[in-house]
Amino acid sequence: MMRLAVVGTGLIGTSVALAARSAGLEVRLVDRDGDAISAAVARGAGEPWSESDPPADLALIAVPPAATGSVLRTAQRQRLAAVYTDVASTKAGVVKSARLAGCDMSSYVPGHPMAGGERQGPAHARANLFDGAKWVLCPQEDTTDDAISEVRRLVKMCGAQVVEMDAVAHDTAVAQVSHAPHVVASVVATAFLTCSPEVVALAGNGLRDTTRIAAGDPALWADILTQNAGPVADMVSAIAAELTDAARVLVKVADGGKAEREELEELLSRGCAGRARLFH
Amino acid sequence: MMRLAVVGTGLIGTSVALAARSAGLEVRLVDRDGDAISAAVARGAGEPWSESDPPADLALIAVPPAATGSVLRTAQRQRLAAVYTDVASTKAGVVKSARLAGCDMSSYVPGHPMAGGERQGPAHARANLFDGAKWVLCPQEDTTDDAISEVRRLVKMCGAQVVEMDAVAHDTAVAQVSHAPHVVASVVATAFLTCSPEVVALAGNGLRDTTRIAAGDPALWADILTQNAGPVADMVSAIAAELTDAARVLVKVADGGKAEREELEELLSRGCAGRARLFH
Repeated sequence: MMRLAVVGTGLIGTSVALAARSAGLEVRLVDRDGDAISAAVARGAGEPWSESDPPADLALIAVPPAATGSVLRTAQRQRLAAVYTDVASTKAGVVKSARLAGCDMSSYVPGHPMAGGERQGPAHARANLFDGAKWVLCPQEDTTDDAISEVRRLVKMCGAQVVEMDAVAHDTAVAQVSHAPHVVASVVATAFLTCSPEVVALAGNGLRDTTRIAAGDPALWADILTQNAGPVADMVSAIAAELTDAARVLVKVADGGKAEREELEELLSRGCAGRARLFH
Repeated sequence: MMRLAVVGTGLIGTSVALAARSAGLEVRLVDRDGDAISAAVARGAGEPWSESDPPADLALIAVPPAATGSVLRTAQRQRLAAVYTDVASTKAGVVKSARLAGCDMSSYVPGHPMAGGERQGPAHARANLFDGAKWVLCPQEDTTDDAISEVRRLVKMCGAQVVEMDAVAHDTAVAQVSHAPHVVASVVATAFLTCSPEVVALAGNGLRDTTRIAAGDPALWADILTQNAGPVADMVSAIAAELTDAARVLVKVADGGKAEREELEELLSRGCAGRARLFH
């Protein structure tokens, strides 16, 4: 029977633990916050890790990106497990910090499950959080095949689909599909901090969906964006430029511009086509 | 028994017709497209209107904003009904064009049901489309109380909640809660027209939600945005400026800026608070 250690019993760590328990694995839980461990234990996610436990087969490091490198190093020094993976939503910086911290890279498979939720913590964890989700793995040149196999097993157990990618390519991709859209949603939502109650009263499902991700934990997201600030800045800057242009077109349309009316419809058609390419 | 005429058997018109039929009303359907009438009849939305029909109590004009004024005038000349309302998602321009077209304003209550969907046409209509939705009415100084009462009755029958507003205030509000977010979603979705398949593969639920409204019909939305281009331009321009600023902050964060890291978290916190004000 495979033994899993989970370091960080937040939403992601506890959800993986629950999925692993459902599959019959033995799970040990580690968190610097005793309450978070108790909550995860109460959810049936496993038992608290104790120093007398033998090393697990696999340890999942599920802490914020900025802490991942140092937590991995501590876990490896404690011989917590034979193989390690993490869940940080940026990868190039985490891999670099793990190398700089002197981590053993042969037993470490950098990972990123592409699922989550606005509501953090073990109370919102669920075994099926990763059902059908993509789970990126960024094995390095020195990662062993055995380590990769072990982590792939865990991903499949969670119902997710492995996508192997280069760490830098991953970061650019998530800047586009996740991090920059998060900044955009935040900026759109911010506009409603100071508007009249009459305006708030008219908010419907469209705005609910476009701003949903803005409800994410600001501290966690500031951490994520900091780790991937360069690629996110590029995409946000490009979107800002396109919106500036759209506003210019709209001003001309307001003045009765016929050519700009065509431009506006083309802009919307491109958006429609982009959306269709993403989801069909 | 109240008799309703619906002009324009698209998604909105047919959904109102279905709700009215559920409430036992007699419904007559008008559309310049015979197939659209047939489809609505097949859905059980009512019977085709014929010239020998007596005037209805109420006529709902459910055609695109740019056509609403002239269709209203034609309907009034035909004595289609005693009272009229419309569903155009902008109001000041529609009211102005109705006045210019010489419509009788005393029997006309400008309206906007705040519900819809990306999939247009009678095939996607449903009686409960307006359940719990806001439905704005913008009665004018010369609108009679009887006309307002009649339209309020229809709105309640559809399960929606009446919000009375000034037409200009309505347009500014929907520019903020609906039209500008639509432009933003389109611009974000457009970025994925030319990206690599690897990037598309990583798109998840967050991006699905932030770009959902970009799937709306480009021709219809170009029409809506054209009618409300001024207020939409203001909001899009403000969002573009905020995003330009966010990109500047991110570039500094990428360079290790500590103060900008704080600024970034504040930006996200404001977004989180704005979202909480909208939906809780």
